[in-house]
Amino acid sequence: MNYIFELPFRVRDYECDLQGIVNNANYQHYTEHTRHEFLLSRGVSFASLHERGIDAVVARLSMSFKTPLRSGDSFVCRLALKKEGIRYVFQQDIYRLPDERVVVRATIDTVCLINGRLSDCPELNEIFKDVL
Amino acid sequence: MNYIFELPFRVRDYECDLQGIVNNANYQHYTEHTRHEFLLSRGVSFASLHERGIDAVVARLSMSFKTPLRSGDSFVCRLALKKEGIRYVFQQDIYRLPDERVVVRATIDTVCLINGRLSDCPELNEIFKDVL
Amino acid sequence: MNYIFELPFRVRDYECDLQGIVNNANYQHYTEHTRHEFLLSRGVSFASLHERGIDAVVARLSMSFKTPLRSGDSFVCRLALKKEGIRYVFQQDIYRLPDERVVVRATIDTVCLINGRLSDCPELNEIFKDVL
Amino acid sequence: MNYIFELPFRVRDYECDLQGIVNNANYQHYTEHTRHEFLLSRGVSFASLHERGIDAVVARLSMSFKTPLRSGDSFVCRLALKKEGIRYVFQQDIYRLPDERVVVRATIDTVCLINGRLSDCPELNEIFKDVL
Repeated sequence: MNYIFELPFRVRDYECDLQGIVNNANYQHYTEHTRHEFLLSRGVSFASLHERGIDAVVARLSMSFKTPLRSGDSFVCRLALKKEGIRYVFQQDIYRLPDERVVVRATIDTVCLINGRLSDCPELNEIFKDVL
Repeated sequence: MNYIFELPFRVRDYECDLQGIVNNANYQHYTEHTRHEFLLSRGVSFASLHERGIDAVVARLSMSFKTPLRSGDSFVCRLALKKEGIRYVFQQDIYRLPDERVVVRATIDTVCLINGRLSDCPELNEIFKDVL
Repeated sequence: MNYIFELPFRVRDYECDLQGIVNNANYQHYTEHTRHEFLLSRGVSFASLHERGIDAVVARLSMSFKTPLRSGDSFVCRLALKKEGIRYVFQQDIYRLPDERVVVRATIDTVCLINGRLSDCPELNEIFKDVL
Repeated sequence: MNYIFELPFRVRDYECDLQGIVNNANYQHYTEHTRHEFLLSRGVSFASLHERGIDAVVARLSMSFKTPLRSGDSFVCRLALKKEGIRYVFQQDIYRLPDERVVVRATIDTVCLINGRLSDCPELNEIFKDVL
């Protein structure tokens, strides 16, 4: 996998549920935060896109849960990107550190709404042109 | 306590943390949701206030945690209201059901920002006039 | 779709993010809570399963996001169930109320760990036998 | 204030609500995570305490909200500690970075339950003895 960005994290105890493992919904949070930091690393803020009428939204996702994270764990979320039609398809995989064990594999299809209408997004195309 | 509104809830398992009890931050969520449903019961939506430039925000809160909630518990959040200067002071107490045991006692001071400026809010004063 | 259980909800404002719509991860919360209430409707508590060494965990999920929920929206999460090998496969679809517009379609594969080992679960098989 | 620990953070966009600011309950999360990392910095894990029958719980908290955090903000949560009777009283203040503006001031009283009974906790007293 040709990852082009990664973000390190630590489990926060409030993210663990009564099974003593990170609740599944938090993996979606981790992938979202990683995408937004990836955008920022290229000079674009998700919030400022929203203020200018450009809303990137998730259209579809699939996630496989391989190994649960627990209190005290460190991990990294890595990201690859391709474009299919007007969809930006993120492959986002989470690895526990330091043993690099796979935690989650996720594929997340996002699209842009410009002023509420599904559209191709020239601004994002430009920002991503070296990796698409 | 002269409660003027109440909202029933059930614990959702994702709200419990690795101690097997509801994580403290969720009690703040419960009190917020109860305040917003109280507003709706009087015809006002928190979201529409925001869209019109009126932001009700929490200035200060204090909470005492008496009995933890657990998976499977039902409970009710009750609300009383008074005004002190420009502050709307909510007393919000959570009781486990059906045994009415006290879970949390909270005092939450909220203020209004109108177009970003701290202000008295004629619209809310009008809505609450029978109870203030 | 042969739904066998449903649970009504209302959006809580803290579930909405800066785009003014329910943050995607919350749909995972809604589907989890619906599964756990479905278990309870058949006399089984997720927490008590955990205490007895039986952990139901999500192995894989896919979700399609069709229409975002917003502040003030009511909705219902409906559930169908089939078994494939040792996997319990839940089809969980969320519909906005009262217009029944599709919000999310989700397929969630769960498996059981008994004392930490992936296993078929006689207890759940028994509980679900009339619907599998 | 004699702070003895601090932890840096960045706002994650999913922590912001429809007002475009960090939802209040997240400040409780930030203070909890900071306390747990403080414990870890002294060699004690909150999760392992729980597994050994020692549950540190919040008995009471008060928070003043001074300046809201927004998407893109960095901040630090600083911590001071004193003991009053069997209570460990944490003063936890959040400052926006780099301008050091006060975001939240919080006082959080925690107590220990040892095997479910409110108790003084020799293990924590020992760990904190140089700062109490």
